[in-house]
Amino acid sequence: MTIPVSTNYRYFIDLSFDGTAYHGWQVQPNAISVQQILAEALTTLLREDTGLTGSGRTDTGVHALNYTAHFNTHASPLQLQEMDLVYKLNRIVPHDLAIQQIRQVIPDAHARFSAQCRSYEYIICRRKDPFMVNRAWLMERPLDFDAMQEVSRKLMQYKDFESFSRSNTQVNNYLCNVTSASWRQEGHLWIFSIQSNRFLRNMVRALVGTITDAGLKKISPCQFDDIVKSKNRSNAGYSVPGCGLYFLGAEYDDSIFLK
Amino acid sequence: MTIPVSTNYRYFIDLSFDGTAYHGWQVQPNAISVQQILAEALTTLLREDTGLTGSGRTDTGVHALNYTAHFNTHASPLQLQEMDLVYKLNRIVPHDLAIQQIRQVIPDAHARFSAQCRSYEYIICRRKDPFMVNRAWLMERPLDFDAMQEVSRKLMQYKDFESFSRSNTQVNNYLCNVTSASWRQEGHLWIFSIQSNRFLRNMVRALVGTITDAGLKKISPCQFDDIVKSKNRSNAGYSVPGCGLYFLGAEYDDSIFLK
Repeated sequence: MTIPVSTNYRYFIDLSFDGTAYHGWQVQPNAISVQQILAEALTTLLREDTGLTGSGRTDTGVHALNYTAHFNTHASPLQLQEMDLVYKLNRIVPHDLAIQQIRQVIPDAHARFSAQCRSYEYIICRRKDPFMVNRAWLMERPLDFDAMQEVSRKLMQYKDFESFSRSNTQVNNYLCNVTSASWRQEGHLWIFSIQSNRFLRNMVRALVGTITDAGLKKISPCQFDDIVKSKNRSNAGYSVPGCGLYFLGAEYDDSIFLK
Repeated sequence: MTIPVSTNYRYFIDLSFDGTAYHGWQVQPNAISVQQILAEALTTLLREDTGLTGSGRTDTGVHALNYTAHFNTHASPLQLQEMDLVYKLNRIVPHDLAIQQIRQVIPDAHARFSAQCRSYEYIICRRKDPFMVNRAWLMERPLDFDAMQEVSRKLMQYKDFESFSRSNTQVNNYLCNVTSASWRQEGHLWIFSIQSNRFLRNMVRALVGTITDAGLKKISPCQFDDIVKSKNRSNAGYSVPGCGLYFLGAEYDDSIFLK
């Protein structure tokens, strides 16, 4: 009797993409996704199905500065290095998608389930800017920055974010541990940064829409509290456009990386 | 006998554009230019030919962060304000073109001839970046940053830049007073900044190509000196792509602005 020896190696792959041309990360019928493009490129070069799995969904038009996925292959780290996989991948995927690095991980490391926290940014463009087309939400109406900052800081006090989740989502609970949430101004760009252990579907865009309602004085800080506590999506503001949203990256424990 | 009273006002208009879709600023047959788009928009709103004149040419694909042009109209500053001209212009020109402000100037102020100095930047992208497609020159080969800085600093010592000018250009001389020229690194972007009283056609792109030859160790700093002194375009390096070039703006004496 021979014991089957697994010759599979698992790797994390870090990439960035301009999401304008994609229907998000996730493979889906009749639409181009980042996962599909990258999985096909990996299969072309490694000549096997790698089971490419991402750290999470992204919506249509959403961008990523440091997105992580994992894949399996029979090729060893030395073989990947000899074939210059990162270089070759970057030459066969389109301009709007770039691979930064590939690192070997322990066999049960998982791009989604091993992630300890995730970060997003949302950019509001306060005046017409030719260089931010499809890369920010153009919103020129008067906004009270301090009011937006005030309600954003409240997010760290709450645990249940059902008010900001898509209703048809398949989750057991709506609990998120938001560890930071704040705004900064860079010229005419207003940038919202948020970090949490997890995010519900559509959560950042619904949050920014509701925070913007506070900036427009359509709701008061107290009403913002009421919206969160109501656990009812229909009380929150509208979901701002995906083009302003950037997935900044997920964090993993160093112990999952080999070497 | 009545003395004809000029009812014409002259204005400076400041704009920015992503040059990707344009064949530069200058109107030309069978190609879309920024000047054409903006002149048509002004005529649509002001119902007269405004004689829109730019501060200088830009090549196909070149970008501008603060480009200045002048135009004439019978409309007074109050009338422009009442019709909200900046707002309306921004709504009828495409997304890749934005108007920042319109300021009244003295009648003989000229966007080109009144400019005292002009600034450009050129961006080299050192690794594939989805967000810099058409906005930088992707150049991943090893480059010696210090060598590029060293030869760039020499530019302030020279006056005649014939080696970096297009041969079929209509100028009386090739004298430029370069007041600053240096490189900086912002992450994987290497950015060249240059300021001069004037620029010859194609000059920045030919300069960056030749400086890059120094970075590639294809030429030594002494050979760089020889190239400048030769006053022969064929000795200089190749003209780097227009997509990496940004016109930053022209400077004018405050005295030409009214109010």
